Amino acid sequence: MILSALDMLVPTHQTSGLWRHPEAVTEEYRDLDFWVSHVKLLEEAGFDTVFFADVAGVYDVYEGSGRTAIRTGMQYPLLDPLLLISALAAATEEIGFGVTANVSYESPFLLARKFATLDHLTRGRIAWNIVTGYQPSALRNIGADSLPHDERYDRADEYMEVVYALWEGSIEPGALRIDAAANTYLDPDRVHPINHRGKYFDVPGTAVTLPGPQRVPLLFQAGSSPRGMDFAARHAEVLFFAGTTPDNVRPLVDAAQGRAAAELSTITSVTLIAAGSDAAARERYESYLRHVDPEAAMALFAGWTGLDLSTYGPDDVLEEVHIEGNRSALQSFTAMDPGRRWTIGDLASHMTIGGRGPVFVGSGETIVEELERWMKEAGVDGFNVDYALRGPDMKAFAEHVTPVLRSRGLLRKRSGNTLRGRLHGRDLLPDTHPAATFRRG
Amino acid sequence: MILSALDMLVPTHQTSGLWRHPEAVTEEYRDLDFWVSHVKLLEEAGFDTVFFADVAGVYDVYEGSGRTAIRTGMQYPLLDPLLLISALAAATEEIGFGVTANVSYESPFLLARKFATLDHLTRGRIAWNIVTGYQPSALRNIGADSLPHDERYDRADEYMEVVYALWEGSIEPGALRIDAAANTYLDPDRVHPINHRGKYFDVPGTAVTLPGPQRVPLLFQAGSSPRGMDFAARHAEVLFFAGTTPDNVRPLVDAAQGRAAAELSTITSVTLIAAGSDAAARERYESYLRHVDPEAAMALFAGWTGLDLSTYGPDDVLEEVHIEGNRSALQSFTAMDPGRRWTIGDLASHMTIGGRGPVFVGSGETIVEELERWMKEAGVDGFNVDYALRGPDMKAFAEHVTPVLRSRGLLRKRSGNTLRGRLHGRDLLPDTHPAATFRRG
Repeated sequence: MILSALDMLVPTHQTSGLWRHPEAVTEEYRDLDFWVSHVKLLEEAGFDTVFFADVAGVYDVYEGSGRTAIRTGMQYPLLDPLLLISALAAATEEIGFGVTANVSYESPFLLARKFATLDHLTRGRIAWNIVTGYQPSALRNIGADSLPHDERYDRADEYMEVVYALWEGSIEPGALRIDAAANTYLDPDRVHPINHRGKYFDVPGTAVTLPGPQRVPLLFQAGSSPRGMDFAARHAEVLFFAGTTPDNVRPLVDAAQGRAAAELSTITSVTLIAAGSDAAARERYESYLRHVDPEAAMALFAGWTGLDLSTYGPDDVLEEVHIEGNRSALQSFTAMDPGRRWTIGDLASHMTIGGRGPVFVGSGETIVEELERWMKEAGVDGFNVDYALRGPDMKAFAEHVTPVLRSRGLLRKRSGNTLRGRLHGRDLLPDTHPAATFRRG
Repeated sequence: MILSALDMLVPTHQTSGLWRHPEAVTEEYRDLDFWVSHVKLLEEAGFDTVFFADVAGVYDVYEGSGRTAIRTGMQYPLLDPLLLISALAAATEEIGFGVTANVSYESPFLLARKFATLDHLTRGRIAWNIVTGYQPSALRNIGADSLPHDERYDRADEYMEVVYALWEGSIEPGALRIDAAANTYLDPDRVHPINHRGKYFDVPGTAVTLPGPQRVPLLFQAGSSPRGMDFAARHAEVLFFAGTTPDNVRPLVDAAQGRAAAELSTITSVTLIAAGSDAAARERYESYLRHVDPEAAMALFAGWTGLDLSTYGPDDVLEEVHIEGNRSALQSFTAMDPGRRWTIGDLASHMTIGGRGPVFVGSGETIVEELERWMKEAGVDGFNVDYALRGPDMKAFAEHVTPVLRSRGLLRKRSGNTLRGRLHGRDLLPDTHPAATFRRG
């Protein structure tokens, strides 16, 4: 079972209003010492990776402003997760680090240097969650172009060509000689300009960073639109889905596995609330429900989808609501439970804990049974595990869920030196992956 | 005395060819555990900051190609220093971190988020060395515009306006309420869009990261052209010079102090080779000289200045060499010692250890006397200390120089919680600094 811990450097992640819970420690998100000890806990609990989501803007669609997201701390403010990784790497030995970085925000040349840097500093434990960008509020401030959805993926495909060429094709394995007698530190005949000239990017030169142990970071992706799935099938090694039922996730998994260029693992989002018994877990869950804030959830929903439902009442039925704009995200919500007649209130309530994914509440045994059922029925290889309260729920996971996973032999043992090695048994991408076409020497 | 340790995430920094020295450990530059223990040593040795230089391209002017720089590992390959900082912060308590970041490489919105992130993660120990960009080899690959020298500074001035507005003017002090009863985590009335519309940047929105303990990172700068000095006088809190004699540095210091908008500290570059006695230090220095590589130095010089002197012989005199292009950098070299008739060979030889700065060789006593003489004669407040061999020379500093500095009361005691507090006695910029004009609330 692949176990990834899903998080974000924010006061509240996917649980709206829970900053008001008496056990919430909202400011831990900007405390380095907290993160170091928290990720050590995750490593001890058996997680293969910690996975950091990221955005670069305020959710400002709800009621046409960012006020609700700001007032409720809804994924705002936030820190840049790439900058946290070296501290986590220094304090741990095995856990991997998935970091979201958007191909619309900075040049492929600089992003390639960043991931190569982190591949060295983590000794091959870095993964990149490739996102192509939404959030006009971020793009406006960055000065980046807002492209139509499908063209965004065309540009992203070219972006990947550039970074693959820099990681795989510029500095050959064996270029590093360190030969004093020949006065050759690096062999210039084995260092190549990539000469990329494309529609979106011109990158003539050589990489400036030696490739790390994985050369290419492990590639995560979460696209679910047709063009997004096309991109994911070409590039991703780990695909991340969200849906409320196994039946809802299964077709996405099957479609992705049918088209993948290389070995593909799939994980799906779950929020876990564990305790020593089902009753104790239920009691904790009830205490969370007493603090949720549906309005904050609707601000998050509006930011994700571009749909402002603030003028509707909680009893209005979604199918009857006249919606302009991006319907696909809304459909992915209502499709979570196709037999159900969703009201705006249902949607807000569902979103308050765990975003689009399901919430499992119970003892370690109960939760592991649900996880095993999902693996079988949805066909996924593992989970991106979210929490309602960061510290308490992840401590409860370590205490109650980990021992059951361990006793059933579901935790992955260390294998290989890198994150790719741990998940797929090799340090480098296979020859079938498009990055391999850039290899030389 | 301000003590900064100058370094760069490269196999060889400012000592050409020394990767061939038997004590060189070239690959430590990409080893996280090395950096953690090295910076702990610097902290124990009394350094106020470690200062990371950075470039993003190959030095490809010498002989019209990057081959010499690549073959001799001349500041190539390299890692991104911003990504190392959190690991160093987690392992230390007091030392500050100066990081070079180029305003030509990425959007002010994203760079503001990065430094705000690091201000939190370091608890207010981050400094930014502002550079405006040279190296066409980097700009081409990034896809950034290559602007004329003076216009580069006009754009940089506007860039600073944007980041000041994001750090000082967007999220007011007191905006963070965390008030469950009022259902207000952040007060939206105290979070403001910056509405920046300028010649080079449009940034309408709010900052996405809460300001850290310093709000604005401590600002380092190193400009020495007239337009560069103008920029530095407006923005910098610590100015960094290089020159071979105190007489050469003094006019720069006086000119800067005369024009500074706020309290200004000045430091100058020195390379220190210490040992238990003058004779032992001299012997170590001689062993370094046996391994230097003047050709690598000329590749670095060409990269810095844009001047390819490869077609001249070592005995050709600089004044007689017909030079096209950028003369100012060359003049800053020959002006290092105005009475001297510089040959190409002199220049290459001078550049092999420590770049443009002087090299002090001796016992702790000898070195501290030279440092004190420089402070008095050049009028500087301290030093950016470079090494010939990273590990051995910095260990020798801690062993032989630190005790003398300590016994003479020259080391700074911890004062204030932030780097700015340590150097200038306050956490925030003073009201006289242009960033302060963006303050609200």
